[in-house]
Amino acid sequence: MNVLVLNCGSSSIKSQIIETTSAAVLSKVTIERVGRPDAILTAFDTEGRRTRRTLPVKDFEVGLDAALAAHCGDLCDIQAIGHRVVHGGERFTEAALMTPEVVHAIEDLIGLAPLHNPHNLRGFYAASRIMPHARHVAVFDTAFHHTLPPRAFLYGLPYAYYTRDKIRRYGFHGISHRYVSKRCGAAKVITCHLGNGASICAVADGVSVDTSMGFTPLEGLLMGTRSGDLDPSVVLALLSQEDATTQSVENVLNKQSGLLGLSGLSQDMRMLLDARANDSSRAALAIEVFTYRIRKYIGAYWAVLNGADAVVFTGGIGENAAAIRAEACAGLEAFGIEIDPLQNEATLGTEATIHRGRIPVHVIPANEELLIAQDTEQCLASLVH
Amino acid sequence: MNVLVLNCGSSSIKSQIIETTSAAVLSKVTIERVGRPDAILTAFDTEGRRTRRTLPVKDFEVGLDAALAAHCGDLCDIQAIGHRVVHGGERFTEAALMTPEVVHAIEDLIGLAPLHNPHNLRGFYAASRIMPHARHVAVFDTAFHHTLPPRAFLYGLPYAYYTRDKIRRYGFHGISHRYVSKRCGAAKVITCHLGNGASICAVADGVSVDTSMGFTPLEGLLMGTRSGDLDPSVVLALLSQEDATTQSVENVLNKQSGLLGLSGLSQDMRMLLDARANDSSRAALAIEVFTYRIRKYIGAYWAVLNGADAVVFTGGIGENAAAIRAEACAGLEAFGIEIDPLQNEATLGTEATIHRGRIPVHVIPANEELLIAQDTEQCLASLVH
Repeated sequence: MNVLVLNCGSSSIKSQIIETTSAAVLSKVTIERVGRPDAILTAFDTEGRRTRRTLPVKDFEVGLDAALAAHCGDLCDIQAIGHRVVHGGERFTEAALMTPEVVHAIEDLIGLAPLHNPHNLRGFYAASRIMPHARHVAVFDTAFHHTLPPRAFLYGLPYAYYTRDKIRRYGFHGISHRYVSKRCGAAKVITCHLGNGASICAVADGVSVDTSMGFTPLEGLLMGTRSGDLDPSVVLALLSQEDATTQSVENVLNKQSGLLGLSGLSQDMRMLLDARANDSSRAALAIEVFTYRIRKYIGAYWAVLNGADAVVFTGGIGENAAAIRAEACAGLEAFGIEIDPLQNEATLGTEATIHRGRIPVHVIPANEELLIAQDTEQCLASLVH
Repeated sequence: MNVLVLNCGSSSIKSQIIETTSAAVLSKVTIERVGRPDAILTAFDTEGRRTRRTLPVKDFEVGLDAALAAHCGDLCDIQAIGHRVVHGGERFTEAALMTPEVVHAIEDLIGLAPLHNPHNLRGFYAASRIMPHARHVAVFDTAFHHTLPPRAFLYGLPYAYYTRDKIRRYGFHGISHRYVSKRCGAAKVITCHLGNGASICAVADGVSVDTSMGFTPLEGLLMGTRSGDLDPSVVLALLSQEDATTQSVENVLNKQSGLLGLSGLSQDMRMLLDARANDSSRAALAIEVFTYRIRKYIGAYWAVLNGADAVVFTGGIGENAAAIRAEACAGLEAFGIEIDPLQNEATLGTEATIHRGRIPVHVIPANEELLIAQDTEQCLASLVH
């Protein structure tokens, strides 16, 4: 089946048409700067040939029209669309056909994910107007973590904040953690998704038992521009500073912190590794905090799992930054974790095993789009016609 | 040397006179409800005989006068006073004679510890008026953690929040972690101080390398009434609720959360264990979250230390609650941690080893007062007269 996979952000549309049986990407179109007169459309055809042009894209509907035309010209006949939806709350434990009732439920979840769900929905609204006869499926970033036990998902707050306000750990990056843990195949796996957003997951027998992102994608590891873990009192201290507002603090913690905030240079790990090579002590510091946090979470999830059978790296940094993999695993010999330097250095964006210690360490490139396409097909097949 | 050890809280004075060479407690006086007409004074003499009475105590000076009279009648001749001071900031890495300059520096740190340092200082002001010729020494709760490396003490915030605003992990309970890690003697130790406040520390060769409390004592483990770790976004979500203020949220996180908040019953672990035995599912849940967090931190610090040689329990819960020790260590066989049920059950507030696994697990009763007295003596001895 050909499935259009849509991933809409605040000002971007990422789309792929995937043939699910062969897992082939038939075409791939990205639009950046949606809402501006100089949006950028980048398209790859089946042979991987790239074209790129600027065009005015006033909204998601115009953008999606342009994307579909770039995908398949006038011949576009898409019957199934898989939408990446960040937050499925406690309700959505698997992919769901986007009936009016389901769309309404996703709209109700905007309060839990104000930075994400509205954009995902905007993509759906546009797609359902352009392709009213296609079937739309929501694939949720949270769903894989619905198996977290209460001891892992509850915060230490008055209980009513959970029952009444739904404040709990949800976890994100679920599509990625599920994909790589399944692909790894070991019974007890610690999966490290390291990209601009970053999270770690403890997976036992195919089921997520704990993960580092929480109520929102802000908690856990240090990220490109997000702070990760923080004493809750720090948030209150930031709010007590002159001119601070809830919005300004939220902005600092989500957009100006993490690797960017500590280094003062960049949120891009490649640039930080270069800067470190050129003796930037602040770049070195940011990288050290980044890898130290990964080590701490590997240890914590080792305890959660009572020992793991494998560790997996994925995501842009996890797949491509050999130095980060090496440093994240350094000093973990007590766990039987030891990286093979040569195999590690030789691995760049491809599937590989990179250990020489007792515990297998794998690099598995993330393919969230393929999983969204497959989930979409499976969801549609499970419906009674 | 006889040292008066003073630990002043928001409405309490705890005091002991300790003979440092023999480590004997000569007398012990506690005053609760300072500021009220019905304050309670409890005194123990050298033989451990207890007396108790109510009296009006309008302020710390009146309270301290009454305490001194209860300690030694009219014969009080104390030459050395050790003050427990919670926050020493980055400056105080060891005990310090409270010269006017040092007192001023502690006053400057009030911004970092508004809930603690003011009370500690109030005790000092009263004591220095009553005993102007005694020498006063500040022993800091943070000092032991001054050895934390930047990777452990830096949050993922814009760097200026550290350099300009001094926002970093400081760690607390340092006197306790130092005492029990030293007493344990192993090279790499994980010390668990579990009381109404609770924290864990990774100690390597006598030096603190990471600890769970952070900028304030709110971060880390679940505590009696404190939330511990939280997605920073949760704080912002709580602030966006109707009628919420920074103060109300601070109050919820510090006074209404933790074991009390989750159970809805009590902050007292003994009461929760009783309630669980009587089938309270919420008490069971609160206890489960409490022990789960301890396990995660043991794992995280196992990674930080690249394997530990021993685990130590101390503090009211750590010394007395065998069930909590057993559950905090359950499912950690992968680390070589296994509790001996009989030895564990038999241990109540006394020093003991309670393991049958490869890794020694110790119970070591905290004696912060003795350490404060010894630090005070040592600080005074080191001064040139």
